[in-house]
Amino acid sequence: MRVRILGIGMGPRHVTQEVADALRGCDYAVAARKHDDDGLLALRQTVCDTYGVPLVTVPDPERDRDDPADYPAAVAAWHEARVAAYERVLGACGGTAAFLVWGDPALYDSTLRIVERIAARGVVPVEHDVLPGVSAPQLLAARHRIVLHEVGRPVHVTPARRLREAVDAGQDNIVVMLGGKPAFEGLEHWSVWWGANVGTDTEELVAGRVGDVLPGIDAARTRAKDRAGWVMDVALLRRPV
Amino acid sequence: MRVRILGIGMGPRHVTQEVADALRGCDYAVAARKHDDDGLLALRQTVCDTYGVPLVTVPDPERDRDDPADYPAAVAAWHEARVAAYERVLGACGGTAAFLVWGDPALYDSTLRIVERIAARGVVPVEHDVLPGVSAPQLLAARHRIVLHEVGRPVHVTPARRLREAVDAGQDNIVVMLGGKPAFEGLEHWSVWWGANVGTDTEELVAGRVGDVLPGIDAARTRAKDRAGWVMDVALLRRPV
Repeated sequence: MRVRILGIGMGPRHVTQEVADALRGCDYAVAARKHDDDGLLALRQTVCDTYGVPLVTVPDPERDRDDPADYPAAVAAWHEARVAAYERVLGACGGTAAFLVWGDPALYDSTLRIVERIAARGVVPVEHDVLPGVSAPQLLAARHRIVLHEVGRPVHVTPARRLREAVDAGQDNIVVMLGGKPAFEGLEHWSVWWGANVGTDTEELVAGRVGDVLPGIDAARTRAKDRAGWVMDVALLRRPV
Repeated sequence: MRVRILGIGMGPRHVTQEVADALRGCDYAVAARKHDDDGLLALRQTVCDTYGVPLVTVPDPERDRDDPADYPAAVAAWHEARVAAYERVLGACGGTAAFLVWGDPALYDSTLRIVERIAARGVVPVEHDVLPGVSAPQLLAARHRIVLHEVGRPVHVTPARRLREAVDAGQDNIVVMLGGKPAFEGLEHWSVWWGANVGTDTEELVAGRVGDVLPGIDAARTRAKDRAGWVMDVALLRRPV
């Protein structure tokens, strides 16, 4: 059977022409049903409805997000449980399945690893391909109307839990993904461009000097979560000259 | 007047729904006409034709790409010449103009800075917004079916001329943009996923150990350039464990 891993940005408005064509050719799409993201599932449903594709929801295993000591092992266990859940669905349904990925499959997303693992287990023979989607840092930059880096300079993209490492290593332009709440202590003089639920109708944007806008970011994050039922935030931090 | 800065990935197949809607609402699109990228201009023309938008081409000032000593100044001078050229066109045409940006306006693209500069000069009053597009690193990752980083790790995006700096600073996952030909000396044991003209019909892909695939990359780059008349390449380098 065939699996197509499709980046959909933050929903229907970010679907590319090639992803739209791919979706029309799929027999169904699969998506995880989590406890805390009913809004996200609804967005996926809207994408499926737009292109006439049935959506099969798969209960998502629980994941320990409290920054466990052995982070890679915790993620690995969670992956293996998801692999089994998706394998069951693909085995039962066959045909051509779409996996709809928030943002882009190449950045902080586990879909590709799950599908590769299903293929490696060999229980359900799977061929897969990937189509890219607009990612959260790009949406953040577009909404703030900024380039992610200064002329000719690098940009460093990191999970929030490794922000400190990047700062200590001397990075000047740091995109922080995968909140919780990143620790901005000691970065009061840096510039920040922050967003939550960017590209959706519960979007919040804040920009300024970290020390000045931190209370505003906290309030905006709460507001996004209250309105949407979920919150995904992303930030660009730039070191003062 | 209004300017809309629209990311179009590598052409019509990567145009998002929101960019398509924006294009339909624009009076015209502007694009640079360079000496060496007739193929790129043709791709922009296809995008415009798809959405019924006239394309106004602007002769692009020459740029010294031979890595001048004062790189920022060389880029600044080139920008100022482009600013004047676009300002003239926008002043003459008015209305709502689209700037079609390869990849994403937030990564190694000067359009945003040019439009901001036009606004700052005040000769032609301009309001602008930005819509994101799929970028070259994302297309590269999708075609190679990879995630850009290992689980929970950062990814570092840098211009080719700063690759050495990133390696020396201990970066493990490095996306190299803005060729010419990056210097891979000393990185023979690293893994590389390379692509040229990714997402177009002259696409070339090579992956493997740097020391093994370097001749293949050189040959593929020449082939892409011969077939398309231009070449844009991008690579992910990963340090051996």
